[in-house]
Amino acid sequence: MINRSKRFARKAVKVDHAQNLIMQHVLQLENEYTSIDSCLHRRISEPLFSKDCMPHFRRSGLDGYAVWSKDALFATPQNPACLRVIDEVPAGYTSNKQVVPGTAIRIMTGSAVPDGADAVIMFEQTEEYQEEGQVSIRIKHKVAHGQNITKVGDEITTGQLLMGAGTRIGPGQIALLASMGYKEVPVFRRPVVGVLTTGSELISVGEPLQPGRIRNSNVYMLVAQIEQYGGLAVKIGTAPDDIDEVNRTINNTLEECDMLIVSGGVSVGDYDVMADFFTTTSGNDTTLLFNKIAMRPGSPTTAAVINNKLVFGLSGNPGACFVSFELLVRPVLLAMQGIESPCKHYIQAIITNDYDKGCPHDRYIRGRMIYSNEQVKVSVLEKNNSSMLISIQDANCIIMIPAGSKGIAAGQQVEVIPLPYEFTMY
Amino acid sequence: MINRSKRFARKAVKVDHAQNLIMQHVLQLENEYTSIDSCLHRRISEPLFSKDCMPHFRRSGLDGYAVWSKDALFATPQNPACLRVIDEVPAGYTSNKQVVPGTAIRIMTGSAVPDGADAVIMFEQTEEYQEEGQVSIRIKHKVAHGQNITKVGDEITTGQLLMGAGTRIGPGQIALLASMGYKEVPVFRRPVVGVLTTGSELISVGEPLQPGRIRNSNVYMLVAQIEQYGGLAVKIGTAPDDIDEVNRTINNTLEECDMLIVSGGVSVGDYDVMADFFTTTSGNDTTLLFNKIAMRPGSPTTAAVINNKLVFGLSGNPGACFVSFELLVRPVLLAMQGIESPCKHYIQAIITNDYDKGCPHDRYIRGRMIYSNEQVKVSVLEKNNSSMLISIQDANCIIMIPAGSKGIAAGQQVEVIPLPYEFTMY
Repeated sequence: MINRSKRFARKAVKVDHAQNLIMQHVLQLENEYTSIDSCLHRRISEPLFSKDCMPHFRRSGLDGYAVWSKDALFATPQNPACLRVIDEVPAGYTSNKQVVPGTAIRIMTGSAVPDGADAVIMFEQTEEYQEEGQVSIRIKHKVAHGQNITKVGDEITTGQLLMGAGTRIGPGQIALLASMGYKEVPVFRRPVVGVLTTGSELISVGEPLQPGRIRNSNVYMLVAQIEQYGGLAVKIGTAPDDIDEVNRTINNTLEECDMLIVSGGVSVGDYDVMADFFTTTSGNDTTLLFNKIAMRPGSPTTAAVINNKLVFGLSGNPGACFVSFELLVRPVLLAMQGIESPCKHYIQAIITNDYDKGCPHDRYIRGRMIYSNEQVKVSVLEKNNSSMLISIQDANCIIMIPAGSKGIAAGQQVEVIPLPYEFTMY
Repeated sequence: MINRSKRFARKAVKVDHAQNLIMQHVLQLENEYTSIDSCLHRRISEPLFSKDCMPHFRRSGLDGYAVWSKDALFATPQNPACLRVIDEVPAGYTSNKQVVPGTAIRIMTGSAVPDGADAVIMFEQTEEYQEEGQVSIRIKHKVAHGQNITKVGDEITTGQLLMGAGTRIGPGQIALLASMGYKEVPVFRRPVVGVLTTGSELISVGEPLQPGRIRNSNVYMLVAQIEQYGGLAVKIGTAPDDIDEVNRTINNTLEECDMLIVSGGVSVGDYDVMADFFTTTSGNDTTLLFNKIAMRPGSPTTAAVINNKLVFGLSGNPGACFVSFELLVRPVLLAMQGIESPCKHYIQAIITNDYDKGCPHDRYIRGRMIYSNEQVKVSVLEKNNSSMLISIQDANCIIMIPAGSKGIAAGQQVEVIPLPYEFTMY
């Protein structure tokens, strides 16, 4: 219990300044190759350019006949074009014959259009008949040059940018990677983030409640937040009481992790060992970036760089812990995985209820966005105190209420940070 | 190659009718218990009610002194209240002393407020001093009854609904589950979905391109879509050419899977074995639900029920395959995991470009939603043909262009289905 007064003499930085300070210490992660079978939701580590074009052959857009368009340029029901069918080609095969005037080759959707043909006419617009043991077709509608043929490179040209570094791999990306032959995909290594919780009041999820004790929920919440943003979370456990031991634990952890999050113990309480840790360990390999932010909740949020790695001290209050993570840790995780401006993620919405709590600092409250006739509306969730967690599950955004004495009235525009969780109806 | 003409004589159903037909055959999945450590993104299988209230003790909202408010009801700098500090309680511990008039107990944020106290005053508003070897505090501001004390059950009352069946577990849910002691969490079993692809033109992702051949991208895309919606995908491989073998493969697969998706082979091509399969196998345990939908793309989309399990035949065209999945398979996966109205997921947006392609059927095109000054806007992505996949990666929604001869003009309102992928900026 050292230096109680020092804790009250903290200098608050603004949120964007805090973000800037942090962003200067983002660790650059190396890339790795992962099988296309296990790359879902990973992030591409380098810009990928197409090595082939797509399609790489003239492709038929439907099931029908490849023809020479001039044969049927003026075809009508009265004056049909009659062509001999000289081959049938399943998709995936190529014909070794050539379409010459007066002939047609039966091909399938996705097939390579045979040489000589410059149009494909769909089955439904032809009539098959036999003539001297030979299959022929009658075409009763005019055929245009190029009709139903996808040109080489029409979808993708060689050398085209397929996706940039930082792209998160979803169904569309994975389809593209597969079609371009990426059996192994270059992705950023997942950032490894340690989670350490503090607080003698914490019991584990399996333990029965006792007077004055609560179950440790922050560790699960933080792990989930880390994993949502592509990190690999490592539970370090509960911090010891002794500051030297805390120091040892943190240093050991940082050898195995890219970043560390500590929840709790950053405020002005007697047992807020993290507050002491951050104010006393500045030295050779440790730089305190800030230990107070001009915001609510989460004002005692702290960040330091220890052995070139970021260490965050977040509030033990679940609401504050959640919000601080989204404002400060999320951008770091995204930047580590190639996102260039990870702090700029505000959108505008119309607030649907009054929020009349004034505050000398910007306030970040949990909100619920809905769409209403092409407008984005947002409502303030109940049970929004920093100590409360029940509303976190319903939050799909964080609403920023600017500093001021009056709060904000229903119908005004506010800035919100969308959260990635269950943003749509489900 | 049986019965070519039968393929052209299909009767188209409307999209919502197709959805209704499918929803009548959704398999009810049993629940299972999963550790809280591995429940992220799973869906709760039954409504959960709180067994305890929260907080379950009178909780201090900050670091300070628990007092009897009447002692300091009229405290001012001129006339401070002076109280003897009779105990110090770390969070997680309870005092065996009682606050009586003239005394205070030092407590921490989150601590249980000792009996007798009805207010907590923060450290910063007190002055500590020693008197006759006894620590005392001076309070210079009036203290109100109940100040900084969170009442028992203020956040959660006993028996309150915590989350409903179908709730997807994110950081907020997991924090709540942990705090309520759910070491094991009741969730729906993940739906197991087989993926079978057809098409002799398909080569595997590791193979070099050959004339007329393309790499199988649909299998990866479908697996990703299935997993995005909570399913467990099983790759069955490529369908054999022979219809009896297809039959055997499908029946074997359905013994291990809850649902099957087949991509390709559903159109009118000569080798569209799935089209034959669906039209010829109706019988005892097989019911064809539909084999044509009045929509673009994906009109030959087919669904059947075989041995009480849904089997989908989706187009082999990647754009069509993607869209059909979102319209028809996504609702089934969500319904299997407890979502009650999984088909109603439209929102409104303003389209920013003309789309002048008329169509006798509703058209579902890939779009990109953006937020612009509290409005939801949407633009049609380029390279949107059903055969194209490059635009899928940029799509964060599907735009519905209603049937009609004229398409739709920029500035009009359209209905869109948001996709869960990278919906926000990152």
